[in-house]
Amino acid sequence: MSDVFDLATNLIRRRSVTPEDAGCLPLIGDRLSRLGFRIEALRYGEVDNLWATHGAHNAPGQGPLLVFLGHIDVVPSGPEDTWQSPPFEPSVRDGRLYGRGTADMKGSVAAMVVALERFVAAHPDHAGRVGLLLTSDEEGPTNLDGVRRVADHFRATGERIDWCVVGEPSAKDKLGDLIRVGRRGSLSATLTVRGVQGHVAYPEKALNPIHAFAPALAKLAAERWDSGNADFPPTSFQVSNLNAGTGASNVIPGSLTALINFRYSTASTAADLRERAEAILSRHGLDYTLEWNLSGEPFLTQAGGHLREVVVSVCRDLCGLDPEQSTGGGTSDGRFIAPLGAEVVELGPVNATIHKVDECIELTQLERLPDLYQAICERMLLS
Amino acid sequence: MSDVFDLATNLIRRRSVTPEDAGCLPLIGDRLSRLGFRIEALRYGEVDNLWATHGAHNAPGQGPLLVFLGHIDVVPSGPEDTWQSPPFEPSVRDGRLYGRGTADMKGSVAAMVVALERFVAAHPDHAGRVGLLLTSDEEGPTNLDGVRRVADHFRATGERIDWCVVGEPSAKDKLGDLIRVGRRGSLSATLTVRGVQGHVAYPEKALNPIHAFAPALAKLAAERWDSGNADFPPTSFQVSNLNAGTGASNVIPGSLTALINFRYSTASTAADLRERAEAILSRHGLDYTLEWNLSGEPFLTQAGGHLREVVVSVCRDLCGLDPEQSTGGGTSDGRFIAPLGAEVVELGPVNATIHKVDECIELTQLERLPDLYQAICERMLLS
Ligand SMILES: [Zn+2]
Ligand SMILES: [Zn+2]
Repeated sequence: MSDVFDLATNLIRRRSVTPEDAGCLPLIGDRLSRLGFRIEALRYGEVDNLWATHGAHNAPGQGPLLVFLGHIDVVPSGPEDTWQSPPFEPSVRDGRLYGRGTADMKGSVAAMVVALERFVAAHPDHAGRVGLLLTSDEEGPTNLDGVRRVADHFRATGERIDWCVVGEPSAKDKLGDLIRVGRRGSLSATLTVRGVQGHVAYPEKALNPIHAFAPALAKLAAERWDSGNADFPPTSFQVSNLNAGTGASNVIPGSLTALINFRYSTASTAADLRERAEAILSRHGLDYTLEWNLSGEPFLTQAGGHLREVVVSVCRDLCGLDPEQSTGGGTSDGRFIAPLGAEVVELGPVNATIHKVDECIELTQLERLPDLYQAICERMLLS
Repeated sequence: MSDVFDLATNLIRRRSVTPEDAGCLPLIGDRLSRLGFRIEALRYGEVDNLWATHGAHNAPGQGPLLVFLGHIDVVPSGPEDTWQSPPFEPSVRDGRLYGRGTADMKGSVAAMVVALERFVAAHPDHAGRVGLLLTSDEEGPTNLDGVRRVADHFRATGERIDWCVVGEPSAKDKLGDLIRVGRRGSLSATLTVRGVQGHVAYPEKALNPIHAFAPALAKLAAERWDSGNADFPPTSFQVSNLNAGTGASNVIPGSLTALINFRYSTASTAADLRERAEAILSRHGLDYTLEWNLSGEPFLTQAGGHLREVVVSVCRDLCGLDPEQSTGGGTSDGRFIAPLGAEVVELGPVNATIHKVDECIELTQLERLPDLYQAICERMLLS
């Protein structure tokens, strides 16, 4: 079988559920080291990260620097017997490779490694630098010790990234039909509304926080936060959890808790949204506290950006598709790299099965991905 | 010490937490049996009830029948070391008797027994019949096997109750300052609102039941259900529990659950309230289900009713107070007796400490209560 297939299946066999890397990172580090890459193992807390770079003048801050970004951790498989074949035993059926992480994103990681190997072998004296940044803390709940911490390290050491290709599965139906050129921001909060506990038979002695919050909740849910813009859909607001009550049916609860989340476009700022939400709560006379958590600012690689143009041209030339250039979906580790001043574009396989049972990647996509990533290297770093 | 003190402390020593009677009922049954009362022990499920009657023509349906109604079960004490003296060891301090059930309502029960003993001893040939109905299932969550079942038994056997004095602690500050002449109804429901679960990053693929419910909730909370009437305050509506969400902050929940409760006056009917609540939910286009539970219809002893007049006169003559005639507060077992056609009036000690640590009754109130109950017997059944 091919290089990329061999590496992908080797990675899939490793049970690298967040934050475990299960040996994936040393394996890749060793391979790239043999080809002259400089390897930095960055361990934060329980998380291993790998930073591998190659170039004639290979030192932090030397540019231009093109980075491939990926994660080798995967989400849990759930009960293994619900899978048609065991999630950590790669299996080929009907032209597809099955296994946890095949699409999200060990297939992309294997393709990046193979593409970089081919590129530096063919062009040992390429201009600038190429790099591979891998983490084992992307799928977890906090992402505290992954790319977020590596970005801090880059700031501290003067490393500068010009362009970053993220391997997240971006395609809808066919490889190359959609690339991501940005991501919305994510702003969360825990809202506590305080009332006065009491007995339902004596409502005049209590203050029901559910009743007090209801009009403000209706207002928040109906609010149009912005209209989006050319690159982003409108900002959306969701209450994901709402809990009040002691369980007893005759007690008016003393407080209410809600988890709220904004997915927001560059048409708004986090500060604006915070202020507007608090204004609505205050206008309704609520006794409340909000604990805000900004988990990612929005980022956008402008139309006309060099990397964005090149990735589009690669999709056109190698896949025969004019890719949709989207900012939809959740967040990605690109949110930590973009603030370093990098253009960030995401290109990966079809995402239909990610995080599900029987996750898979089409073999034709897996075999094609190294060509795409290699072409990006060539078009960015050969003149 | 006095008869009523001896009996009250004997009862308080018994750990009759619902549904246990801890021997209280046989003790009382034996005492009254010795004075010629006819005793029926009515056991339903795990619950013992006592039905004791006395009269020249003592058979079901013979009247007029004056009944004293009480419960010997108590709510749990909570951690005993938070009490100044152990909750099940009656203790006198500063003119008060402390212990679980002193006020709610073993003090009243002891007073009823002593009053009945004195009354039949003094007037063995009184007109009509007097009865004592005691249950050990009043404080529990369901009250399925207490007075509710006894009332069914009365219906089946042709028993008719003309007047019923309930010993629930009704007073605010002084014995005789408030009597209850009715109770609001209690109508509950479990409301489930269905949406479509999804990821907060893709709200267009989901339907958030919290957002969908918010305007209807605001409307329900703001609704004026009725204006009450001369005897009742306006109907009140409360959401006691509201829960939605998987706990994960990035998941839009698929459904929402709320527990709702009406405390309603005779200005509304349960059917009306159900219909109006459902109309509000339907008008907001919600996909919902409601499981209704009517735990008690409202009842009222009209002004001018014979028992009501007598109880008021007893408070005036023996306590020197013109009692407030109220329909406030929670429900009571009176709700099961009133539908039998009985006038129901509630008269008992001060309720400030009920269901709390260091529950107590003033000794002067405990000693006075038998006089009040005995005077009611005399004014109702001697001509
Ligand atoms: Zn991923
Ligand atoms: Zn009670």
